[in-house]
Amino acid sequence: MIKFKNISNEAPYKVFKDNYDKAQKNKQKNINAICISSYSTTNEVNARFVNLKFILDNKFIFFSNYNSPKAQDFSNHNQITALIYWQNINLQIRMKATIKKTSNEFNNKYFSKRSKDKNALAISSHQSKTISSYQEVIKKYQQAKTNKDLSLCPDYWGGFSFNPYYFEFWEGHQSRINKREVFDKINGIWKHSFLQP
Amino acid sequence: MIKFKNISNEAPYKVFKDNYDKAQKNKQKNINAICISSYSTTNEVNARFVNLKFILDNKFIFFSNYNSPKAQDFSNHNQITALIYWQNINLQIRMKATIKKTSNEFNNKYFSKRSKDKNALAISSHQSKTISSYQEVIKKYQQAKTNKDLSLCPDYWGGFSFNPYYFEFWEGHQSRINKREVFDKINGIWKHSFLQP
Repeated sequence: MIKFKNISNEAPYKVFKDNYDKAQKNKQKNINAICISSYSTTNEVNARFVNLKFILDNKFIFFSNYNSPKAQDFSNHNQITALIYWQNINLQIRMKATIKKTSNEFNNKYFSKRSKDKNALAISSHQSKTISSYQEVIKKYQQAKTNKDLSLCPDYWGGFSFNPYYFEFWEGHQSRINKREVFDKINGIWKHSFLQP
Repeated sequence: MIKFKNISNEAPYKVFKDNYDKAQKNKQKNINAICISSYSTTNEVNARFVNLKFILDNKFIFFSNYNSPKAQDFSNHNQITALIYWQNINLQIRMKATIKKTSNEFNNKYFSKRSKDKNALAISSHQSKTISSYQEVIKKYQQAKTNKDLSLCPDYWGGFSFNPYYFEFWEGHQSRINKREVFDKINGIWKHSFLQP
């Protein structure tokens, strides 16, 4: 589930929300899975799925470890691509945006409301750092569960927010005659067009 | 369905194939959907899903229009990331690779065996170029169906192939204690490690 608040009635946001409602009605699993692609300091493209948690004031928000490779990628190159595929309605949404951290205040408030189990993992894990075995991951997690204040947000954990400047809504149709509708923000105005499949 | 042929028995390829078989057994839909992330001439990260058709001699192969934005991205920056998520077994596979075109011979042979309906679209569509309406897309497609030799591969259509130098197999577990296993090819040798979740 994505939590929506203060979403604009402008076309790309409204089209997004209408499709989200349709995907939910069609029982889409993992509806908040979103692929974030970034560019690293070693000039490599990277990508991974994250959970999109909020769309607040047209800003898309997910959470991460701030020392993770993706956080390093964002501070090197703040432009990203975000990609959603809702299989049950055969819809792909492609977005481009610049990305930045959310405020400490926002992070602390959100962290204090999360489950203690998830927080123990956020506290115990040096995300994407090498470790000798998966057993070691579980051991560190169990230690955090007993030793730490599990509602206190560590300074190395928080949100990232992005407000897309480009949306493509791609609907799969038979024989690849797919429908591709684009909203591209140019000088503050949304330009609307269709692309060939 | 992905068609496999001459796959190495080395760990990352074997792990990939074993997981594919498991996903198929678990009735994974769109099992050949793969997100390809690239880097453009305007320094933007892009991403889109494509259909992975073959893994031949450890090379992953999909098809596209050679004048499309993604083809232009690859010729600007030949490093890509490929991402798969098989929901029914909660497995994400992250790969990094360099990418290149397949041969004309390979393209012609494959094109001649595809359905005429798909070929009509490949011939009629200037992929990702703007068009006045979706009706115009359908009109161009219908014209191609009646006017063209539908088994002759146009020179602007063909395959892309990549052989990953990096694999991460990410298994989702409870409370985010996810299992992350990495195979990283360094000087021709696969280095095996685990990452913190």
